[in-house]
Amino acid sequence: MRKPRRQVALPQPAWGQVPRPYAPIKVISDDQVEAIHQAGLRILRDLGMKVLHGPAREAFRTAGARIEGEMVFFDPAMVEETRSTAPETFTLAARNRAKDLKVGGDHMIFTSVGGPAYVMDLDRGRRDGTHQDMCDFLRLCQSLNVVQQESGGPLEPMDLPARTRHLDLYHAQITLLDKSWELNALGRGRTMDGLELAARMMGWSLDDLLAQPIMMGVINTNSPRQLDIPMAEGLMTLAEHGQCAVVTPFTLAGAMAPVTLAGALALQHAEALCGVVLTQLVRKGAPVVYGGFTSNVDMKSGAPAFGTPEYAKAAQASGQLARHLRLPFRSSNVTAANALDAQAAYESQMALWGSLMGGANLLMHGAGWMHGGLTASYEKLILDAEMLAMMQAYFTPIEVSEASLALEAIAEAGAGGHFFGTQHTMERFETAFHAPMLSNWDNYPAWLAKGGEEVPARANRIWKELLGSYEQPALDPARREDVEDYIARRKAEGGVETN
Amino acid sequence: MRKPRRQVALPQPAWGQVPRPYAPIKVISDDQVEAIHQAGLRILRDLGMKVLHGPAREAFRTAGARIEGEMVFFDPAMVEETRSTAPETFTLAARNRAKDLKVGGDHMIFTSVGGPAYVMDLDRGRRDGTHQDMCDFLRLCQSLNVVQQESGGPLEPMDLPARTRHLDLYHAQITLLDKSWELNALGRGRTMDGLELAARMMGWSLDDLLAQPIMMGVINTNSPRQLDIPMAEGLMTLAEHGQCAVVTPFTLAGAMAPVTLAGALALQHAEALCGVVLTQLVRKGAPVVYGGFTSNVDMKSGAPAFGTPEYAKAAQASGQLARHLRLPFRSSNVTAANALDAQAAYESQMALWGSLMGGANLLMHGAGWMHGGLTASYEKLILDAEMLAMMQAYFTPIEVSEASLALEAIAEAGAGGHFFGTQHTMERFETAFHAPMLSNWDNYPAWLAKGGEEVPARANRIWKELLGSYEQPALDPARREDVEDYIARRKAEGGVETN
Repeated sequence: MRKPRRQVALPQPAWGQVPRPYAPIKVISDDQVEAIHQAGLRILRDLGMKVLHGPAREAFRTAGARIEGEMVFFDPAMVEETRSTAPETFTLAARNRAKDLKVGGDHMIFTSVGGPAYVMDLDRGRRDGTHQDMCDFLRLCQSLNVVQQESGGPLEPMDLPARTRHLDLYHAQITLLDKSWELNALGRGRTMDGLELAARMMGWSLDDLLAQPIMMGVINTNSPRQLDIPMAEGLMTLAEHGQCAVVTPFTLAGAMAPVTLAGALALQHAEALCGVVLTQLVRKGAPVVYGGFTSNVDMKSGAPAFGTPEYAKAAQASGQLARHLRLPFRSSNVTAANALDAQAAYESQMALWGSLMGGANLLMHGAGWMHGGLTASYEKLILDAEMLAMMQAYFTPIEVSEASLALEAIAEAGAGGHFFGTQHTMERFETAFHAPMLSNWDNYPAWLAKGGEEVPARANRIWKELLGSYEQPALDPARREDVEDYIARRKAEGGVETN
Repeated sequence: MRKPRRQVALPQPAWGQVPRPYAPIKVISDDQVEAIHQAGLRILRDLGMKVLHGPAREAFRTAGARIEGEMVFFDPAMVEETRSTAPETFTLAARNRAKDLKVGGDHMIFTSVGGPAYVMDLDRGRRDGTHQDMCDFLRLCQSLNVVQQESGGPLEPMDLPARTRHLDLYHAQITLLDKSWELNALGRGRTMDGLELAARMMGWSLDDLLAQPIMMGVINTNSPRQLDIPMAEGLMTLAEHGQCAVVTPFTLAGAMAPVTLAGALALQHAEALCGVVLTQLVRKGAPVVYGGFTSNVDMKSGAPAFGTPEYAKAAQASGQLARHLRLPFRSSNVTAANALDAQAAYESQMALWGSLMGGANLLMHGAGWMHGGLTASYEKLILDAEMLAMMQAYFTPIEVSEASLALEAIAEAGAGGHFFGTQHTMERFETAFHAPMLSNWDNYPAWLAKGGEEVPARANRIWKELLGSYEQPALDPARREDVEDYIARRKAEGGVETN
């Protein structure tokens, strides 16, 4: 049944999480961390959160919070006590258990882009996402070893009905990937469908999920200081089943947050704490991730900016705040660039160094994010995969030993000699350095002679090669049938409410 | 006399060094630093350096080194004692004393590209450098606030005679810049001409230089383990006059250095120590900078690669080695990219984060370096200036205070509101964030409607605007005459020997 395919050998790092071996960068002092933490607690106590979902307010009220209409005011001691039951580290299962992921500590998870409305490539330009694009993007995520988790849908398939679109996404995630994926946590219906299907994918019951988390879902607060009904439902449904909410305020300094980074971080911290507390009130010990997404607007136009110096600093400070709470930290690989040009790369690099050297455990939108999150780009996916592979190589520690110090080789090469032919080089050269998939290191005349191909054209060629050599991972036929029966039934029922 | 010029207001950071407020990244342990340091000492003791310059060998012999032919073998205790007299920090004067530079500690100097044979821009492609290009490049360096030092000639003016070319460079540096510049340290003649002219530029004598360093020159060892005559002469001439040698082995792992980073670093360290020791033997207390330029080759082709993960790690380890010696550290902003595309940006970003978070005090080739150092690019100059300005903004610490925590503004905005109009925003928005010169943050349709200009086209427009608005800094006419008399005399004498 398998189609004949072109044999390719694009250099890729082996599958696997590479732990961060270096201490994260501290951009604020421990006293400043404490000051922002206290400011977050004061915001929750004195200004409160607007919580639109009745059952969420009820959970807070039962824990001793003061309720005035839709506003919830939190006692700092309750916040501190409640949030402390969230785990510092945990393991997230994948369909292929060899691809289970460690969450927290020094571990990093690189994900693909999640959520854009548009899709783009060099041949077809920017356009509405389709089911075909969604599936092709997932195939590429499966093929790229450095993508360790799929991020809840790389693009919105606009050619599918909104009420059942999430079911088609889950079907594609289950059948086209064997690695970890996130569900769509917008409301209880989509979240439950994701959990039911994840259980069927594994041959598990919903109860089995309590013993082994397998799902993450992103929960965005509506900054400033608001938690809406679909997100509260998603969060509570995840926590109820022992699954992981990634609580992420979107605190854009100068717009939805104060123009000062300290103020934006204090607001982010307050909102994240509110979400973390709610997970623990629903289920003590439920896994939860502290998300930071503080960036800034262009103060001339009000346009959101990403991968700015402020973004890098805020990501690193957010990592400090998350570690203060002993929680895993989520950050993102972002850019506002409109083309796959140098700006796309330097903004993403600022975001990568900000996030990963800020101690991020979950790098969302790790590969494929363009246009400030509005577009999933096939070529950006390849560009990011190269940059992530470079970061993995950077995070591979320098070995210092008598053998690696190489005094014998230095003697052998002689003064003014070279090392190409030494025994020491011959034994190691094949795996000594990061081998790029995208970078071109020809000299200029050779590069010109071969056509002078720049990054977009090279990335275009690479994703097509990867797509051509995609292999669908095997899935137990009984589980697949179980999954497809559930989807057929839910589609027949009409899917979820939309508004 | 001044030509009428177009009024432009490109956003630029103010002139000034921004100290690094965060601790540098440590990629190896203190024990591993010590192991590499000891390996460097063993290389000097057991394998030795080939020193081609007789007077340099004589200086080492007088200090107790063992000489066999051209080989010099160093007693570790002598190395340790001699190198310890080099200063940890010093100040480097500029023609405009308001632009004096602090060297060492937490201070960073961003320089422009130095040394390429070719020049390139979007309109004229790659071509041999000319005197006109050299002068235009210097004008741009003067106009870009983030370029704090010119790097000894941005390109080789191939239309000028080789024997006196350095004199035309010095004339251009003195008359077109009022900021710090480096001299060409290739041999005693060029070095002395630089020192003589620097003194005349200031209205100083050569003796005055001893009290106040004003010149740096780059000294490359010929890795592995070789110091040639022109470089030894340059180093000794600089030290003799109390000026700063930037001792930089070019240890390309897999070619001129072991294929292992630890081995390449041990070799780099040995060669750097040899140079540092020679400066102190010539003149105890002479300023000297520890240079690291460890990168790797592409093991498939042997081509040098730059801005790789290995480069970033090696730069940060080199910073640790330099701090172990209590010496200022030099690193570089490098790329092998052939076009001003995403690769040029991501390789330079890897180099910038590697260097600057590795504790670099002197960032050579900070702006304008392309093609692995063979080409000075006008558009890369602008791309790098933007990335350097972003790093300066990143190095501006987050202020944490009651005012910046902004609880009043958070109360004022209300739950679900926004911060555009709050008093707190109005008071701060104009200077709150890095304002880009090159980045475009329009949304995609607006960007398309304005012509869809990518980074190369924008950078091209920017350097032309900067060149059009260049203002030549005033120079005391008597000093200028003194400078020009010296140059005329040296040209009449025939300049320096070349080979």
